[in-house]
Amino acid sequence: MSGQGILIVLSGPSGVGKGAVSRALLGESTDLVCSISATTRLPRKGEVNGKSYYFFSRQEFRKMIDRQELLEWAEVYGNFYGTPRVFVENALSEGRDVLLEIDVQGGLQVKQMIPAAVLVFLFPPSRAELQSRLLKRASESLAEMEKRLKWAEQELKMLSRYDYAVVNDRVENAVWRIQSILEAEKCRTWRFKNC
Amino acid sequence: MSGQGILIVLSGPSGVGKGAVSRALLGESTDLVCSISATTRLPRKGEVNGKSYYFFSRQEFRKMIDRQELLEWAEVYGNFYGTPRVFVENALSEGRDVLLEIDVQGGLQVKQMIPAAVLVFLFPPSRAELQSRLLKRASESLAEMEKRLKWAEQELKMLSRYDYAVVNDRVENAVWRIQSILEAEKCRTWRFKNC
Repeated sequence: MSGQGILIVLSGPSGVGKGAVSRALLGESTDLVCSISATTRLPRKGEVNGKSYYFFSRQEFRKMIDRQELLEWAEVYGNFYGTPRVFVENALSEGRDVLLEIDVQGGLQVKQMIPAAVLVFLFPPSRAELQSRLLKRASESLAEMEKRLKWAEQELKMLSRYDYAVVNDRVENAVWRIQSILEAEKCRTWRFKNC
Repeated sequence: MSGQGILIVLSGPSGVGKGAVSRALLGESTDLVCSISATTRLPRKGEVNGKSYYFFSRQEFRKMIDRQELLEWAEVYGNFYGTPRVFVENALSEGRDVLLEIDVQGGLQVKQMIPAAVLVFLFPPSRAELQSRLLKRASESLAEMEKRLKWAEQELKMLSRYDYAVVNDRVENAVWRIQSILEAEKCRTWRFKNC
């Protein structure tokens, strides 16, 4: 084995259950760590710097972009969000797997920087199921939900640029599939140094 | 899901334990079937046509080659061996996975015919371990063993043309890795028809 960890990017539409699947994955494996995003938005109550997010000023964030210290970044509603490169690369070189929960555009940026990254798209059993999951979120207005569903459809169009598609019919099934993907990826011949 | 089964080719040096791993895999999955080879060698005592092998005359075998009815074939010590195409293709289209235990040259021939095939190379934890496993086989003379080890080294050189490399440290570990590979391959986006 090469000893290098695997970077796994998990994307999927809002409401598909990325959070629940990520938590279950992280809870079941001691070798898997979660990447912490950098952001310029202000910390919310209870959010700790370096735990929920790394908080930066816009000026600091722009410097990180210029220095190519981010694996991917985007501006959302006037705030910057991104993935600090050093944390991910250190964990991978220590042989730990890294989980990154970002959107498809971010995932494709990461793949350009780290071609060995494994891109997994989590999708719902059906559109109706996604709609019903979004409806259960008290915070979602119908207009907001429609926007999210449209966005989900846009993301689905880019599915073929992802490596794997995992149906989240049940959290434990999705977790088992992603664990299988990690195990299989570790056996891929091109990851072996002496090939 | 596409509904199409996966063809998994298992190769590896003599003595690595392909037989034990195959039996365990087949025993644990009802969706996995083993491909039966065609041969021109005479049946040994107890061998049943269509179960151990499909037995053919040299003339019949040559006809199958000409008609491209074999996924791969080779002549070994004056006898022909090959994999009948129809059995494999029927099982795959019925959604069953097919296990094919053949050598690396055969595996590469299969990949040319069926690019979606998954090539897995089973290798021993070490050369010393392989040697000791071969020594335990009462039938192996030292000269025969040396020949097999040389052949194993030749095969290892082609490892990079295989998709996966699985260490057979323990049968149950190898089986778990191959099951993960099958599960992961079913999630690959390019296998989805609508991508």
